[in-house]
Amino acid sequence: MSDYSVVGKSLPRVDAVAKVTGAAEYAADVKLPNVLYGKILRSPHAHARIVRVDTRRAEQLPGVEAVITYKDLPQPSGAGRPIFAQGKVRFAGEAVAAVAASSPEVAQDALDLIEVEYAVLPAVMDPLEAMQPGAPLIHEELKTAVTVDGVEYVNISDHSHDREGNVDRAFARADAVVENTFHLSVVHQCYLEPHAAVASVAPTGKITVWTTTQGHFWTLEGMAKILGVPMTQINVVPTTIGGGFGGKCEAMLEPIAVLLARRAGKPVKIVMTRVEEMLAATPAPRCVIDMKSAARKDGTLTARQARIIWDTGAYAGGGGGGVDLVRGPYRVPNVKVEAFSVYTNKTNPGAYRAPSVPQVAFAYESQMDMLARELGIDPVAFRLKNLKDNRDFAENGKPPRIAVAFKETLQKAAEMAGWGQQTPRQRDRGTPDRKPQGQPSSGHGVGSQRSVVGVKRRGMGVAVGPWSNWAGPSSCVVSINEDGTVKHFSGAVDLTGSDTVLAQIVAEELGVPIESVLVVTGDTDSAPYAAVSGGSRITYGQGAVARAAAREAKERLLKLAAEQLGVKPRQLDTKDGKVFVKRDPKRSMTFSELGRISLWSGNGPIVGRASIAELPSPPVIAAQIAEVEVDTETGFVKLLRLIATQDVGFAINPMACEGQIQGGAVQGVGWALYEGIQYDNNGVVNRSFLDYLLPTAMDAPPVEVGLVELNAPDGPFGAKGIGEPPIIPTLAAIANAIADATGVHITDLPITPERIVTAMSSTSARSGGASRSPRRTARPTGK
Amino acid sequence: MSDYSVVGKSLPRVDAVAKVTGAAEYAADVKLPNVLYGKILRSPHAHARIVRVDTRRAEQLPGVEAVITYKDLPQPSGAGRPIFAQGKVRFAGEAVAAVAASSPEVAQDALDLIEVEYAVLPAVMDPLEAMQPGAPLIHEELKTAVTVDGVEYVNISDHSHDREGNVDRAFARADAVVENTFHLSVVHQCYLEPHAAVASVAPTGKITVWTTTQGHFWTLEGMAKILGVPMTQINVVPTTIGGGFGGKCEAMLEPIAVLLARRAGKPVKIVMTRVEEMLAATPAPRCVIDMKSAARKDGTLTARQARIIWDTGAYAGGGGGGVDLVRGPYRVPNVKVEAFSVYTNKTNPGAYRAPSVPQVAFAYESQMDMLARELGIDPVAFRLKNLKDNRDFAENGKPPRIAVAFKETLQKAAEMAGWGQQTPRQRDRGTPDRKPQGQPSSGHGVGSQRSVVGVKRRGMGVAVGPWSNWAGPSSCVVSINEDGTVKHFSGAVDLTGSDTVLAQIVAEELGVPIESVLVVTGDTDSAPYAAVSGGSRITYGQGAVARAAAREAKERLLKLAAEQLGVKPRQLDTKDGKVFVKRDPKRSMTFSELGRISLWSGNGPIVGRASIAELPSPPVIAAQIAEVEVDTETGFVKLLRLIATQDVGFAINPMACEGQIQGGAVQGVGWALYEGIQYDNNGVVNRSFLDYLLPTAMDAPPVEVGLVELNAPDGPFGAKGIGEPPIIPTLAAIANAIADATGVHITDLPITPERIVTAMSSTSARSGGASRSPRRTARPTGK
Repeated sequence: MSDYSVVGKSLPRVDAVAKVTGAAEYAADVKLPNVLYGKILRSPHAHARIVRVDTRRAEQLPGVEAVITYKDLPQPSGAGRPIFAQGKVRFAGEAVAAVAASSPEVAQDALDLIEVEYAVLPAVMDPLEAMQPGAPLIHEELKTAVTVDGVEYVNISDHSHDREGNVDRAFARADAVVENTFHLSVVHQCYLEPHAAVASVAPTGKITVWTTTQGHFWTLEGMAKILGVPMTQINVVPTTIGGGFGGKCEAMLEPIAVLLARRAGKPVKIVMTRVEEMLAATPAPRCVIDMKSAARKDGTLTARQARIIWDTGAYAGGGGGGVDLVRGPYRVPNVKVEAFSVYTNKTNPGAYRAPSVPQVAFAYESQMDMLARELGIDPVAFRLKNLKDNRDFAENGKPPRIAVAFKETLQKAAEMAGWGQQTPRQRDRGTPDRKPQGQPSSGHGVGSQRSVVGVKRRGMGVAVGPWSNWAGPSSCVVSINEDGTVKHFSGAVDLTGSDTVLAQIVAEELGVPIESVLVVTGDTDSAPYAAVSGGSRITYGQGAVARAAAREAKERLLKLAAEQLGVKPRQLDTKDGKVFVKRDPKRSMTFSELGRISLWSGNGPIVGRASIAELPSPPVIAAQIAEVEVDTETGFVKLLRLIATQDVGFAINPMACEGQIQGGAVQGVGWALYEGIQYDNNGVVNRSFLDYLLPTAMDAPPVEVGLVELNAPDGPFGAKGIGEPPIIPTLAAIANAIADATGVHITDLPITPERIVTAMSSTSARSGGASRSPRRTARPTGK
Repeated sequence: MSDYSVVGKSLPRVDAVAKVTGAAEYAADVKLPNVLYGKILRSPHAHARIVRVDTRRAEQLPGVEAVITYKDLPQPSGAGRPIFAQGKVRFAGEAVAAVAASSPEVAQDALDLIEVEYAVLPAVMDPLEAMQPGAPLIHEELKTAVTVDGVEYVNISDHSHDREGNVDRAFARADAVVENTFHLSVVHQCYLEPHAAVASVAPTGKITVWTTTQGHFWTLEGMAKILGVPMTQINVVPTTIGGGFGGKCEAMLEPIAVLLARRAGKPVKIVMTRVEEMLAATPAPRCVIDMKSAARKDGTLTARQARIIWDTGAYAGGGGGGVDLVRGPYRVPNVKVEAFSVYTNKTNPGAYRAPSVPQVAFAYESQMDMLARELGIDPVAFRLKNLKDNRDFAENGKPPRIAVAFKETLQKAAEMAGWGQQTPRQRDRGTPDRKPQGQPSSGHGVGSQRSVVGVKRRGMGVAVGPWSNWAGPSSCVVSINEDGTVKHFSGAVDLTGSDTVLAQIVAEELGVPIESVLVVTGDTDSAPYAAVSGGSRITYGQGAVARAAAREAKERLLKLAAEQLGVKPRQLDTKDGKVFVKRDPKRSMTFSELGRISLWSGNGPIVGRASIAELPSPPVIAAQIAEVEVDTETGFVKLLRLIATQDVGFAINPMACEGQIQGGAVQGVGWALYEGIQYDNNGVVNRSFLDYLLPTAMDAPPVEVGLVELNAPDGPFGAKGIGEPPIIPTLAAIANAIADATGVHITDLPITPERIVTAMSSTSARSGGASRSPRRTARPTGK
């Protein structure tokens, strides 16, 4: 492994200069001549029938060149979200009509001139209410009633049962049982770049769309279906993407922009505002989990059951409720889970980094701590005892082809954190080198007096999160230029630095410096298929085909060089942009020489190609240990430290791995402590970043990353997907640390100061979304 | 062959709607924000030293954002043309400086403010003068002196000898010998779209150029060399091209646009005017050929010798002088040729449709008629006797792998023309159905009285032209979408309808309708290598890889379908977008079904790839028979009819073949009768289409096309390259027809009315570029 020249190195991102100089072109930057600006009229009501739409006044406004309504894009009634509301609006913010005009201001004015008469219906925002008999029906046209134990629930988009073993018997025999209800808020992916799309329709009917998407082939598929045209009639050009985190996987603005452009005969650009993002994008779902877990005295987990209510908003999607989701990375012999997806009058959720897993892991990782404390076992030791290892993945008694390093990953976190080496007193007192660096947080306006009032208590919390990345359908082409430089061409969007990793893989495989490799993302007209940049798949799946295509190109290059040098291909190898005879390295030819010769002899231009449908998924965990300081009077939580370890298989770019893990963990911090879209019956209350709290740089703790590298047999150079795991354990690690500090286990996210103060002053173990559990070792300390 | 569904059909061009609706985007149409307009300062002198350039006043003009001079792009002194004159201008129109400004008008004004002091040198425009001892030296820094027979010629960029057999002995023993000097003018390719390029330089240094080019990979190669950057730092985007004919193969404007864009920090667009095109593009060279040919009484050609003076203008390039060039498609046992390329103070020539061949073929095909008439043999019969056949291409006594159809091609033309079936009287009288359709020509302002004065004589002339297309380095990728549509992706520019042909090839090979195939031309960043669209190579070379890549994709598709249907791949075939079991066609799956399945099973997305370096070239001829009516008083020539046959191997799209052949023949008409850039010592005299005569639609004869289809073993479905041959025979066919009509054989092109009248009134056989030869059968007829 130490022989590698390019992989395994912390090289700067290949797009770094483009990003920092502003050369990178985002969708909103796309400039076309005669472009019009599109705006979308959105429902002010959470639930209403559209009685009448009159666009005449809007059409007459000077500068308006196209007005379309939901009637212009009929979509079959169904569970999935249509581009426009189809006769009935089901959430406040749903699209009803759109205009294209000479300026965004005129377009906005025109929206105000569209008259929509609504017949307002009673709205239901909470899934627990929405599923109750008699609740307003959100999809009268669908069968949404489900009878469970004699109760006919309504507004159910999905209902599932799954079980293994005998949960009831296990609970009856257990030495410790914990039972809680966990509430998780709707959280937004909060990509900095809002949705934006530009559409142009040629007189031939050919559609070109520039858009911010995690996967333009998925956008193409969606658009072709929605617009009813062959895929070859649409070219989707992916622009530089300013974050996605799962929220940019589906066609949304693009069909509207196309319809407006067709109508107007000019290109149309639509850029969503942040308010529209909060109202009408696809955030992570609200979720209510009733969970019960049990263990024996010796610390063996025996049973877990869960009832998960996913809030699917106005249209179906997401959720999940298999036994493996609830079991997590542990051996749990008896598992039972029932899951509901319940329609409410909210925007429908979409994917957000490790979809569905952080929510469920928050529940079971909180309960792991509760059980450990009830049994008097160290939480790390308790987890190590129950984490799966290679024996659990054995295949016919033999070690598994894909080994796991769950325990090593957790152990590494514990070591890095100095877990168990400090008394709580030491921790509560703190030491200068444990203090967060820099200024006290000024992120959310609570004020700096937070740091001078109240008694501070410190606590540490641990949690792990399982993931198993996919590879997905991937293909690419690698070709060698006449000057010896190399092109990697695919349809994969760089969301997280993956172009750099792909360049490293191709450079290593071919034996050229990374500067010689150009990574190009093609539009759907030109590139071969690549699935969405999501599911932590790019390094694993696209990396695998990049390496395979580079290998094929290398084989062709060696064949040509062998002819030229009068040796056999297997006598040759490559390094530093040269092909050389292994036994006599002075006999060599440069890639540049061979690139030129390839054009005129042998089999022609050197082009390698590779495709895969899927690769086996390697199971990993991320482990995190949070150290917090809680002001017991204000409830303010200061994150002192966050240790994050993860099995990355092989770190092709360690710096990029660290960045990914830090980013994921900080998103977890937001989910745990700050974030949550709040609703009243008119929809979203906190519609901007003034009201929706994101962790700022000041709130982000120092995230200390530890990489575990257990090579994946199918990943390029052993790499595994890394993007999603780091958000999974953060929620529980922080909740567990707060419990360690305060003695109260908050089960509702975000863990706001109010919730902490309320829970600490409450005597009820279940009130206020908190579970009072004995503080492991915490003591008050003045400060 | 009749089994084909898509190839062999006259389908409309896939880009037809884009072209006629204006949706096709040419380089000048490219619109970028903040674009500046570039203009080039060109030398007013044909030969001068640059003493001083002062750009200060230009730089101060409001709106001017960049001024560069030749000093900003130093290029090593050499024979090839630099982008800017390097301290010395060698032709009027050579680039000296350039500006970029907010509008084309400001840029033009700024040019006037650049002060250039020239030390004017004596210019030499004619190659016959330029090569004489004592002529002004155009490249003092190069060795250009060549001593031949004791004379030291100067300004020689290239000199070659080639011979086979014993020419002198053959001439001595011949029964008929003809000897002439042929003069051919500089003719311009006259693509309707002038050169244009737009350059943008990102803060990262990455260069993007949109340009009108026949081959962006050649442009890339040239730019990388000139600018000294790796190929991966430049992306060349080919725009729709409005004609090239060989004249758009080299980087010319692009580096200037890049330098201006770098200097200004904004994109720069440069569009050449028609005047600049006439001054400074790369037209076909002027050429003077002394040729002598001999035959025996029985009509056997015995010898040919030639001395060819190519006028290479200010910089080296083009020319040629091998025995095969002079022998043409005939058996000529004794051949001798000497060729000079001579520097003059003109723009250097470039490629123009079948470079160098029309000129030399004009000479020998004129002489074929002269010899035939001298020997009293029918010109067609004389050619048939001497044309090569498969015996001449035999390989070790066996029939050649690539057969030829020279004689069949000529015979077909003779049949179509009714050669030998009409007496001259009939022809001179004409019959209504032989008259040109439509109005009399009003193309060139000589006036309609032309048709009422003078005695009209009709004549027929025949000529053939040999060609052997290349395939060149080619590669492409064919992939199948989830909806069953197909993408063909390559770096080949559609110059002549080749996208349609490629779509037909891919559709036929895969078994889908042509509507399912999208042909995409990628930029140099994304596409695998493709050589220039020239040398009649696209259908042959790119068509071959398109078919091979489609076949590879098909194999992958059949493998997947075999898995799905539980049969073996060889039991399957494809048709109408379906894969079916051959013995039970009802068992089938659609491409769409398989496209979707491919993403999730088997070997992943279906992608085929193919590369070739070269394929064996198939020799063909084009044969043409012209029928003219000459007004013996005005010298006006009316082309009544032009029969054009050609061996196309296999007509993938017969309509497109006919269009190509008609286009080539009409360009030949221009070369024969109208075109020629005229020079005085200050450079070009006729600088626009008002003065440079092109045949208009009114001047174009009805071109009757006959296709011969002798399959090429390596061409896709047997196809051969077809673009170049049809221009080759036209020059001599017309000259021979005029000789048939008038009795004078004009050896200088263009054959203007003045030259005809002068020749007819002259008694000298050699004066005025005409050779008096007995009119075969012509008689005067009143009209």
